[in-house]
Amino acid sequence: MSDIPNPTTHEDTICALATASGGALGIIRISGPQALAATSGICSVPCTSVAANTVHFTRIIEHDAASERHGEVIDEALVTVFRAPHSYTGEDSVEISCHGSRYILNKVLELLCKHGCRMARPGEFTMRAYLNSKLDLSQAEAVADLIASTNRATHQMAMSQLRGYFSSQLAQLREQLLKLTSLLELELDFSDHEDLEFANRSELLELTKKIDNHLVRLAHSFETGQALKQGIPVAIVGKTNVGKSTLLNALLKEDRAIVSNIHGTTRDTIEDTIDIQGVTFRFIDTAGIRQTTDEVEQIGISRTYAAIDKARIVLWMVDEEPSQEELNKMCLYSDNKKLIVVRNKIDKVDNKPFILAKIPLIEISAKHGLHLSDLEQAIYQAADIPSLGATDVIVTNARHYDALIRAHDHIQRVIDGLGEANSQLSITNSQLPPDLLAEDLRQALDTLAEITGGQITPNEVLGNIFKNFCVGK
Amino acid sequence: MSDIPNPTTHEDTICALATASGGALGIIRISGPQALAATSGICSVPCTSVAANTVHFTRIIEHDAASERHGEVIDEALVTVFRAPHSYTGEDSVEISCHGSRYILNKVLELLCKHGCRMARPGEFTMRAYLNSKLDLSQAEAVADLIASTNRATHQMAMSQLRGYFSSQLAQLREQLLKLTSLLELELDFSDHEDLEFANRSELLELTKKIDNHLVRLAHSFETGQALKQGIPVAIVGKTNVGKSTLLNALLKEDRAIVSNIHGTTRDTIEDTIDIQGVTFRFIDTAGIRQTTDEVEQIGISRTYAAIDKARIVLWMVDEEPSQEELNKMCLYSDNKKLIVVRNKIDKVDNKPFILAKIPLIEISAKHGLHLSDLEQAIYQAADIPSLGATDVIVTNARHYDALIRAHDHIQRVIDGLGEANSQLSITNSQLPPDLLAEDLRQALDTLAEITGGQITPNEVLGNIFKNFCVGK
Repeated sequence: MSDIPNPTTHEDTICALATASGGALGIIRISGPQALAATSGICSVPCTSVAANTVHFTRIIEHDAASERHGEVIDEALVTVFRAPHSYTGEDSVEISCHGSRYILNKVLELLCKHGCRMARPGEFTMRAYLNSKLDLSQAEAVADLIASTNRATHQMAMSQLRGYFSSQLAQLREQLLKLTSLLELELDFSDHEDLEFANRSELLELTKKIDNHLVRLAHSFETGQALKQGIPVAIVGKTNVGKSTLLNALLKEDRAIVSNIHGTTRDTIEDTIDIQGVTFRFIDTAGIRQTTDEVEQIGISRTYAAIDKARIVLWMVDEEPSQEELNKMCLYSDNKKLIVVRNKIDKVDNKPFILAKIPLIEISAKHGLHLSDLEQAIYQAADIPSLGATDVIVTNARHYDALIRAHDHIQRVIDGLGEANSQLSITNSQLPPDLLAEDLRQALDTLAEITGGQITPNEVLGNIFKNFCVGK
Repeated sequence: MSDIPNPTTHEDTICALATASGGALGIIRISGPQALAATSGICSVPCTSVAANTVHFTRIIEHDAASERHGEVIDEALVTVFRAPHSYTGEDSVEISCHGSRYILNKVLELLCKHGCRMARPGEFTMRAYLNSKLDLSQAEAVADLIASTNRATHQMAMSQLRGYFSSQLAQLREQLLKLTSLLELELDFSDHEDLEFANRSELLELTKKIDNHLVRLAHSFETGQALKQGIPVAIVGKTNVGKSTLLNALLKEDRAIVSNIHGTTRDTIEDTIDIQGVTFRFIDTAGIRQTTDEVEQIGISRTYAAIDKARIVLWMVDEEPSQEELNKMCLYSDNKKLIVVRNKIDKVDNKPFILAKIPLIEISAKHGLHLSDLEQAIYQAADIPSLGATDVIVTNARHYDALIRAHDHIQRVIDGLGEANSQLSITNSQLPPDLLAEDLRQALDTLAEITGGQITPNEVLGNIFKNFCVGK
């Protein structure tokens, strides 16, 4: 197995705006062998000779003897100097904190390019951090997820991955696989000597199954990871005029109020999602259902089917006790979903309470905002989110999921090869010869190594991973 | 004259997001007596004991023993520590450079608020810098202009103001006014002693007029300042099908290409403005003209009038030689404007060249982009922008203009009082007694002091000045 690619192939010095434009400040990042020299060329601080991790007030000046702008002050800024390897990228780096004017930021980038830098590609700083072994590939991917995180759940998954908890589980798995491989190789070396005592097959099988269970557990977490990342789909169904859109508006409004608690940081919120206890729930568009009247008598129309089909949680809104037939139908439709019956309009005198067996029933008034927090609690519980500790690992990345599944396939073949029986026979008696089993184990190892990038990672793969990063990260 | 307000009244520690959200990084700023302690409370770096102007890698941690999130890592971040008075605000300050996730940034602000900070109001950091004498009021206002600057001209005006060139001209004016006042006060003290030799009235008058000329020059620059800030208005008029919108599109397209040269920093550009040599030109909406046909024969319809009326530069597009009558009319309408005749469609064989006396004529093909740079050069020249050196002062702020005009009024009364004649009579013989003149001089002094805030500035005025700043600045 080769080492990670040689970082010295990255001789360019890159620069980029690392913040969104439009704020009071804008940060320009520079990284590479010429970072300090290029910055010195545009400001009054001799960056090449100041101490690492210090910040300096400076003027950014256009030096171009040929231009009428020679000596023009572009900004009064702060320059922070980092020295290799103690920087984000592992290279010499500078951060310039400018006033957040588009003109100034463009101008500073232009000047840096004149002094030997080039504009960075998306994710190129983090890619360099990876190539310089500051973090592994799954940690690098966590950086993008962390930046995109909008609630506690997505934040925590990304943070756990960035802090290396996924990587360390993978390292543990690889260690076990290596142990298994060496046991098998021992078997191969001595397979001609029938008088020697060989590895105990049931012991090998047990170790292999343990590894496989771990792989399957990680792969299974992907479903949760996806749901948490994209928002857990919830369908609100029910007859017209039962209060579905009133409820949705009430839930959204409550959430919006929380979001806008802290000023200046709110960006456009995505329509029809709410956060409950740090988890995003995404309401499936049931506008079609709301606007038609042809389902007044029948809840079983196709649009309702479709909404339920896409949901993980179904809120069935009623304002009177459903008939047994309706109940049976709904239970059938939402068979593998979490069904919550929501009795709305409890503020109305003629709205009679009822009891349901086995199905959770929440009584609310969407109009008057009564018991909405009970409903939110019920929705949260129905989502069945595993409690996320800081070190818990949830797989959120399709690339990782794919690798885990392929590793699982290889391990399955090993398990098959070792035979399912608990007999104490020598391994040479099993269905597959040990060298084929060892090949599968090696492939499982390589597949897991893809996740953290311990293998040589093809440029194409790296390109695909980093192209969706923001520029400046 | 009292000193600036006491900064010790600002005992709060404030925090805010200083960058726009949505980038790779987000910077949170903290300033005030508790800035270091509050930051220490949420991260692993003991900010209260590290050296000033140093940057430290840290984890941001939620410490709340009562919460299930106790010990949760919110981010891995960089913390930069500044110590009073060597910071932007003049107070102890911290900048936290986080990953640019909305969740993280909100969370860090929330944690800081739990540790004794409060959310900053718009412009509050800069207001503190002013209250702590880090910059004067006109410099503080320049910070907002600098952040809003989108081209070289607006940038340079703001930068000159921020660097104190306006302030130093005001200081010079105030010094001259004080000299004048002391000469007049001398006059007052000895006005009973007719045998003493008094200040020479023509000398006083000369000094006063010199001051007034300077005031008027500054006040006059406001028109240019406004035009540069808002974009110099240009009307494109002419008969239909002469190519007006083709020209506009060609000019815009060329400019857009320049703007998008540097990726990642372009934000939505304002429609129908182009930058020529660092100056914004704003094309007045002549869509109405373009879309109607009732002006095929007559250029003198009301919409054309209106467009010309709002413009500083009029581009009159023609594709054949205008009649003498048309020419006379257009010269009349655009009497106090810069008129440029643009002969379009020079690529067409049947388009005959012609010559005009006294009016600049540019020959182009809008469709094929021929000679557009000549036209841009002519537009730039017509704008008659004073060449802006780094130390040149252009008044861009209505508050400053208003103060300059009021000071000018006071000085005018002094000039009137001193009498226009060049006679060598004692000042006591002039129209107004010296104590009234001295009162006008004092008011002129006070009025100029308003600009830089050397006077006690009422909270209401400060509030109005800083309310339009961004949060975090």
